[in-house]
Amino acid sequence: MRLSRYFMPTLREAPSDAQIVSHQLMLRAGLIRQEAAGIYAFLPLGLRVLKKVEQIVREEMNRAGAIEVLMPTLQLADLWRESGRYDDYGEEMLRIKDRHERDLLYGPTAEEVITEIFRAYVKSYKDLPKNLYNIQWKFRDERRPRFGVMRGREFLMKDAYSFDVDEAAARRSYNRMFLAYLNTYARMGLRAIPVRADAGPIGGDLSHEFIILANTGESEVFAHQDLVEMGAPGPDIDWDGDLQPLVDQRTRLYAASDEMHDAARFKKEVPEAKRMTARGIEVGHIFYFGDKYSKPMKAVVAGPDGVERPVQMGSYGVGVTRLMGAIIEASHDEAGIIWPDSVAPFDVAVVNLRVGEAAVDQAAEAAYRGLQSAGKETLLDDRDERPGAKFASLDLVGLPWQLIVGPKGVADGVVEIKRRATGERQTLPLEAALKAIRG
Amino acid sequence: MRLSRYFMPTLREAPSDAQIVSHQLMLRAGLIRQEAAGIYAFLPLGLRVLKKVEQIVREEMNRAGAIEVLMPTLQLADLWRESGRYDDYGEEMLRIKDRHERDLLYGPTAEEVITEIFRAYVKSYKDLPKNLYNIQWKFRDERRPRFGVMRGREFLMKDAYSFDVDEAAARRSYNRMFLAYLNTYARMGLRAIPVRADAGPIGGDLSHEFIILANTGESEVFAHQDLVEMGAPGPDIDWDGDLQPLVDQRTRLYAASDEMHDAARFKKEVPEAKRMTARGIEVGHIFYFGDKYSKPMKAVVAGPDGVERPVQMGSYGVGVTRLMGAIIEASHDEAGIIWPDSVAPFDVAVVNLRVGEAAVDQAAEAAYRGLQSAGKETLLDDRDERPGAKFASLDLVGLPWQLIVGPKGVADGVVEIKRRATGERQTLPLEAALKAIRG
Repeated sequence: MRLSRYFMPTLREAPSDAQIVSHQLMLRAGLIRQEAAGIYAFLPLGLRVLKKVEQIVREEMNRAGAIEVLMPTLQLADLWRESGRYDDYGEEMLRIKDRHERDLLYGPTAEEVITEIFRAYVKSYKDLPKNLYNIQWKFRDERRPRFGVMRGREFLMKDAYSFDVDEAAARRSYNRMFLAYLNTYARMGLRAIPVRADAGPIGGDLSHEFIILANTGESEVFAHQDLVEMGAPGPDIDWDGDLQPLVDQRTRLYAASDEMHDAARFKKEVPEAKRMTARGIEVGHIFYFGDKYSKPMKAVVAGPDGVERPVQMGSYGVGVTRLMGAIIEASHDEAGIIWPDSVAPFDVAVVNLRVGEAAVDQAAEAAYRGLQSAGKETLLDDRDERPGAKFASLDLVGLPWQLIVGPKGVADGVVEIKRRATGERQTLPLEAALKAIRG
Repeated sequence: MRLSRYFMPTLREAPSDAQIVSHQLMLRAGLIRQEAAGIYAFLPLGLRVLKKVEQIVREEMNRAGAIEVLMPTLQLADLWRESGRYDDYGEEMLRIKDRHERDLLYGPTAEEVITEIFRAYVKSYKDLPKNLYNIQWKFRDERRPRFGVMRGREFLMKDAYSFDVDEAAARRSYNRMFLAYLNTYARMGLRAIPVRADAGPIGGDLSHEFIILANTGESEVFAHQDLVEMGAPGPDIDWDGDLQPLVDQRTRLYAASDEMHDAARFKKEVPEAKRMTARGIEVGHIFYFGDKYSKPMKAVVAGPDGVERPVQMGSYGVGVTRLMGAIIEASHDEAGIIWPDSVAPFDVAVVNLRVGEAAVDQAAEAAYRGLQSAGKETLLDDRDERPGAKFASLDLVGLPWQLIVGPKGVADGVVEIKRRATGERQTLPLEAALKAIRG
């Protein structure tokens, strides 16, 4: 993409109401624009990141055996009356009347809709397990939306729902999601810690939150250092096999967010040298809640004995837009964002330092084409701007690599490459530079 | 994907309120489920088609130089008060009050939002032309939603908006979209006819609709046969060059839908042998409307003379969910859907006719793996069902190919392949069958 034709409106200053660094940087880097309180448009660069985050979430769900569907944003109030949640949900639910005065709502979550879909088609334990997920816009009418996409009102969520014949099978579904979540965050360059969670308004008795470490995080987390350092299980585990040992390995080590923290237990269970306290951001929440919805909504399956019973359910949420903010909280410096390679809007910027000088233009074009034909998503900075302005905006938007083409280098037959994360620079012939970036 | 683990709930009968064939087939093939009047969930197979249609639309927009953004579903009523449309729009607009009694609405289109984004960042003719598009859910509160996704209330739309310094430049942007639309439909196996259109409530003085031919179409179309047979321009045209001749070639031939039809002109301009009358479905609408929004909303750019003037705009819509229905209207038979290859949910089904018989299972697995490793999206029908039931549901869902593995063929070292569109069958050794499907 040629920047002269693109739409990347960077700003020198963030609006004063942006309080946290991810919000400030998303506005300054031209990733989002606020359209109403807690409601954002995604500008081209922001949308590219959002799609990449979304795609990683999707791939890890698919790998763990979940099947993608898409539920509508608007839901019938009557479904929520069936589950009993319509009156309970409170003012965060955006309630709507259509032209015929029928009660609709903008889904804040989708347990009721997916249960309605399930019960319409699935009747037998033979069709289980099933895990159906979707990645769709949700709305929660926060009283005080703030922190940009971290606490927005309209937000993109991946929500998965598992259906099993009994509790033991439901636990297996839960374990698959538990491990898939760790893989998901790891692919985005994040360190995620699973902590036991309060099941909250969704209810149920088995629940974990996933917290990623970021100095600017909203909550405090207390954990055994070994858990923090334990890697994600990786994609090549046997998803149909017994995953309990991999889960136990992680859940037996102490980890809690401030709400659930028990200082006495922390002291007792974790040796002093292993006690980690840090700031973090919640980026996922998984629940097992049994027949909480299936029972009132009559989603039953016949077991091997022919007897019908309510299906055992769990739900599994990741805030996709929120993750974008969380990644920035975890990865930035004073100059701007430092995107992990896997979610960067482009892999590399080719910076033409002397637009209009034929030899430099040619060398920049050659680099641009070379990177593109190697499959690298490349932004060509062909703007008629001072080098300082170019570097400032490119550091701000935080692509992993810059390949810099200037008149002196061209005369010497070299270009410069810069790794955004480390600031490391190398001066190399073009071919060697392309090779370094291709990896 | 193994069908035994998938979620493809086909139905023998469509609900009686489904009046048109695409609606009936989408329900029967397990593509969609109605969640409220005019509001649908997309089941796994339907979502796969939707994503492919969406991706073709996206690629053709990108090729024509448009840049993708994403606007929120909910919009501020105040923006629509700026343009003057808030009171005009009528009951199709879903008006919402949030917890603080602020007026929101569920966007039926996004001229106001994109104009607000544009005016915030773009100040000079030097940054033009720009064409910003998004593919996002919209809502129009139809009084009588019907015909499934063809006239739903919540629907997925691609809407693009062009911004130019003057009318001549705006016409060039319009021409790019005109031709990109023809390429888009052609890639989906559709014959699209551009007809002059009434600009309607969006206003403006240059507008075309695109109508695809389908015997079961909702409207009548009258056109010169040469226009119907003229192919799409193809992707390799010079998008920065003069596209007017390619557009003129198509617009100088008579074409009109029933609303705009002029029988006398048709007779006069089109030789009798070339007069085509057919049924069709509107699948896209493009408008040039000048400063209709930019003027009241003060979206101005400085020209080369330094004088600020309202930017010249156009908008370009494709109903993505509607296209799914239109494709089915244009391509089905008594047994079910016949997906064009480019939008089929899977490329091929491997049909195991004797699940549990080791030699047949093995051969089916070999075919499944062979197709997948050739990059074909493959559904393995490993359900424990009678062959008749398998063929009925697979013909219904309409994948382009079936590769059939039965005990007799396995004994003889052959499999059967069937092309869904023609019903043509061939019996071949496995390797030859894979080759035929790989193409």
